[in-house]
Amino acid sequence: MTSTWAEEALTRDAFLGGRVVLLQPRRGYRAGTDPVLLAAAVPAEPGQSVLELGCGAGAALMCLAARVPGLDLTGVEIQPPYADLARRNAALNGSAAAIHTADLRGLPPEIRARRYDHVIANPPYFDRAHSRPAPDATKETAFGAPLPLADWIDAMARRVAPLGRLTLIQRAERLPEIVAALHGRMGGLAVRPLVSRAGRDSERVLVTARQSGRAAFRLAAPLVLHAGSRHLSDSADFTPEAEAILRHGKKLRL
Amino acid sequence: MTSTWAEEALTRDAFLGGRVVLLQPRRGYRAGTDPVLLAAAVPAEPGQSVLELGCGAGAALMCLAARVPGLDLTGVEIQPPYADLARRNAALNGSAAAIHTADLRGLPPEIRARRYDHVIANPPYFDRAHSRPAPDATKETAFGAPLPLADWIDAMARRVAPLGRLTLIQRAERLPEIVAALHGRMGGLAVRPLVSRAGRDSERVLVTARQSGRAAFRLAAPLVLHAGSRHLSDSADFTPEAEAILRHGKKLRL
Repeated sequence: MTSTWAEEALTRDAFLGGRVVLLQPRRGYRAGTDPVLLAAAVPAEPGQSVLELGCGAGAALMCLAARVPGLDLTGVEIQPPYADLARRNAALNGSAAAIHTADLRGLPPEIRARRYDHVIANPPYFDRAHSRPAPDATKETAFGAPLPLADWIDAMARRVAPLGRLTLIQRAERLPEIVAALHGRMGGLAVRPLVSRAGRDSERVLVTARQSGRAAFRLAAPLVLHAGSRHLSDSADFTPEAEAILRHGKKLRL
Repeated sequence: MTSTWAEEALTRDAFLGGRVVLLQPRRGYRAGTDPVLLAAAVPAEPGQSVLELGCGAGAALMCLAARVPGLDLTGVEIQPPYADLARRNAALNGSAAAIHTADLRGLPPEIRARRYDHVIANPPYFDRAHSRPAPDATKETAFGAPLPLADWIDAMARRVAPLGRLTLIQRAERLPEIVAALHGRMGGLAVRPLVSRAGRDSERVLVTARQSGRAAFRLAAPLVLHAGSRHLSDSADFTPEAEAILRHGKKLRL
């Protein structure tokens, strides 16, 4: 694993139309739209506490900080070079987010002693029991961690305050694992599918659940990211709703 | 429970644009669009066997028979007057469907001895541990049976042939129970949400799974039933896709 990156191995990337700037490695895991969508979907109110497990270079935390002022932010990242970048990115964006270098299975005592209003995550997308690793080691840890998704959800659920909420983004094909892990354990489960174009199968899902509460499960309408039908060329033209979220920092209703 | 209905207590209703005619009780459980959508979603091929658990007056079986010729159809219905109607409706529609009056928990030996290419169901929608019963007893059995949904799914899964498939329709808010019951037990799980109007939460879900196979979970695009936005009056105008399925007997791709 890279212990840190040389400055020339980093890029400086704008998110939310320039409201957030992130240092990211040229190679390795780089934030795309997923952490931005995750941050947009967290219904945090000013003054609340937020814990992100697996925060990487801090994309979701910084996007959340840009939309909701006065949050008490904590990030946990297992890979030291990403945790370092997350600290630098917090400073760069004027955030006091506390970043801990730690494994989910061994969270520091100051985190284990607390519960958070929101616990969020963008867990690795691939179950390496059934897929091949990425050639880059830091990218592989971000994409295909050995920890089962059920363990991520368990670690998240344990840190949610009694009236708090968990929010995560994941590949749609892993929704059954997520639902099986949350069903009967947390309440107010809701899923918002994310699709690249209208009419297609869902590629990602945003999932939320409450620590307590008996609200029925909700399957919301898909958020369509790109305009145009499946017959047109693959352009990056966002739909107005996606544009509002990704470029103008609007909230994503789940 | 009514042992049977007087002729004047029955109506004669057209489905699939008149391709199917059903005798139904004026009061009690009456088929709406759900069994028609269920039948449209079953990818049965001529000559295959189909078992429906809880077939009521036979709406789904008759709609399926109207779309796919030469099926070997079996229905199971716990309420004798509905089972009687299902037999009359089979005769009325020229189908040789075999209808058994039985409880899911005590299926007849001739059904337990077989496996079916397709097992389908439109299980009762309400869990009476958390809701109030309907005043009409036959309607109550159709809507709020005491048997847990997981038991319905278990009874279905047991009767699916090695290369066969299960297909069911249910209220969207019960999707977590369905997914929890099927995850890890069957393969090729897929969900198609059904919404009354574009952009709304899903009201129903069509769910399918294969007895074997390792295909990843799929969350398909919603089928929108009614045209117009949520701001217009609640008309019965179907979208072209819903119209093709409900009025013209087209297949519903899941």
